[in-house]
Amino acid sequence: MKDRESIPKATIERLPLYYRCLDKLANFEDVDVVSSKDLGGRLGIPPTQVRKDLSYYGEFGRRGVGYDVFDLKRSVGKILGVDETWTTILVGAGNLGRALVDYKGFEKMGMKLVGVFDAEQSMVGNKIGGIEVLETSKMEKVVEDNDVKLGIITVPTDAAQEVADNMIEAGIEAIWNFAPTRLHVPEDVTVRNEDLAIGIVSLIYHLSWKKKDEEKENS
Amino acid sequence: MKDRESIPKATIERLPLYYRCLDKLANFEDVDVVSSKDLGGRLGIPPTQVRKDLSYYGEFGRRGVGYDVFDLKRSVGKILGVDETWTTILVGAGNLGRALVDYKGFEKMGMKLVGVFDAEQSMVGNKIGGIEVLETSKMEKVVEDNDVKLGIITVPTDAAQEVADNMIEAGIEAIWNFAPTRLHVPEDVTVRNEDLAIGIVSLIYHLSWKKKDEEKENS
Repeated sequence: MKDRESIPKATIERLPLYYRCLDKLANFEDVDVVSSKDLGGRLGIPPTQVRKDLSYYGEFGRRGVGYDVFDLKRSVGKILGVDETWTTILVGAGNLGRALVDYKGFEKMGMKLVGVFDAEQSMVGNKIGGIEVLETSKMEKVVEDNDVKLGIITVPTDAAQEVADNMIEAGIEAIWNFAPTRLHVPEDVTVRNEDLAIGIVSLIYHLSWKKKDEEKENS
Repeated sequence: MKDRESIPKATIERLPLYYRCLDKLANFEDVDVVSSKDLGGRLGIPPTQVRKDLSYYGEFGRRGVGYDVFDLKRSVGKILGVDETWTTILVGAGNLGRALVDYKGFEKMGMKLVGVFDAEQSMVGNKIGGIEVLETSKMEKVVEDNDVKLGIITVPTDAAQEVADNMIEAGIEAIWNFAPTRLHVPEDVTVRNEDLAIGIVSLIYHLSWKKKDEEKENS
């Protein structure tokens, strides 16, 4: 494997796509062997890119034959860490929290939700995804008891930093943050900001320039 | 402005962050002038990067003085296209759809939701975010009547391609897709895949390698 630090972020972001596609091929389509062309074609990724991405992690597949679907799925799963189970908590039991808990894809990626918390008393005691919503004050114990390293924040913006502080205090090392604010965390904590506004704005940006181009052509 | 095609995607993705921060400075903190250092500091972006990002679009600010907050907000808003209103529809009125409709940030970004649709009869007639959920068959008329270019897909994976096809047929030009599948669309339609599994897997990837490193150190 190449020096891990030198692997492009875009490559790391494509690995889950490969993994899910291989999983589908193995479990639903009974495909044994796949070429980089097939795999890329299904994902809209050029075959050269597929080969390059995988080459960062070792030698897979045989030239002219392709990849063994089962082997490659297992290898990519191991690279990603989804071959293990990662206990996870979620704070913020609103619609977004519910949507995430319902999302079937997560278990396949190794995530196991062991606690859901909310500061609102009216939420406490509700069940979401089969898990009872607890008071935020109980978070620390759940994190300790289940050796949780992964926390999801789906609270309003104003509450997010405090929730993050509490998570880190309890022992969380990676935070998936849906609140539209940048969190301040120690260097050894990883944060992924899932900033939904960026998605919509990048589409608006494209629409807007398309419109400007059309207006220019018509003038 | 530089040739638009040559502007890095990462720059375009940072513009909404600048915009939201400038909006906060202007409307909630009464700040008139901001330096690239201040702006970057609030967002965890190096000041050199802030200046470089903005320089793609023109000359803003004055050396040694900083940026006029109101002017820069207006300029960035115009670049992004959020100074206009973009009518939008959403198909899939489940938890995720609800969470998106509730998200207050969107209106600020120029998005105006004019229709929510669901194939499930049990959903039709419910109100979400003050908008009545309609049958999917009514989508085309709503798109035409409101000149909608932007569509959001929050349906299950299996239904996503058909919904996308119907959207495009009706006149939608940009799709924000939350279903974990790649959509096949004509070249002139822009798709943004908001693939939630990638978020969680990139965190698991980091946790997993951290654990491997720790095990190596301890062995």
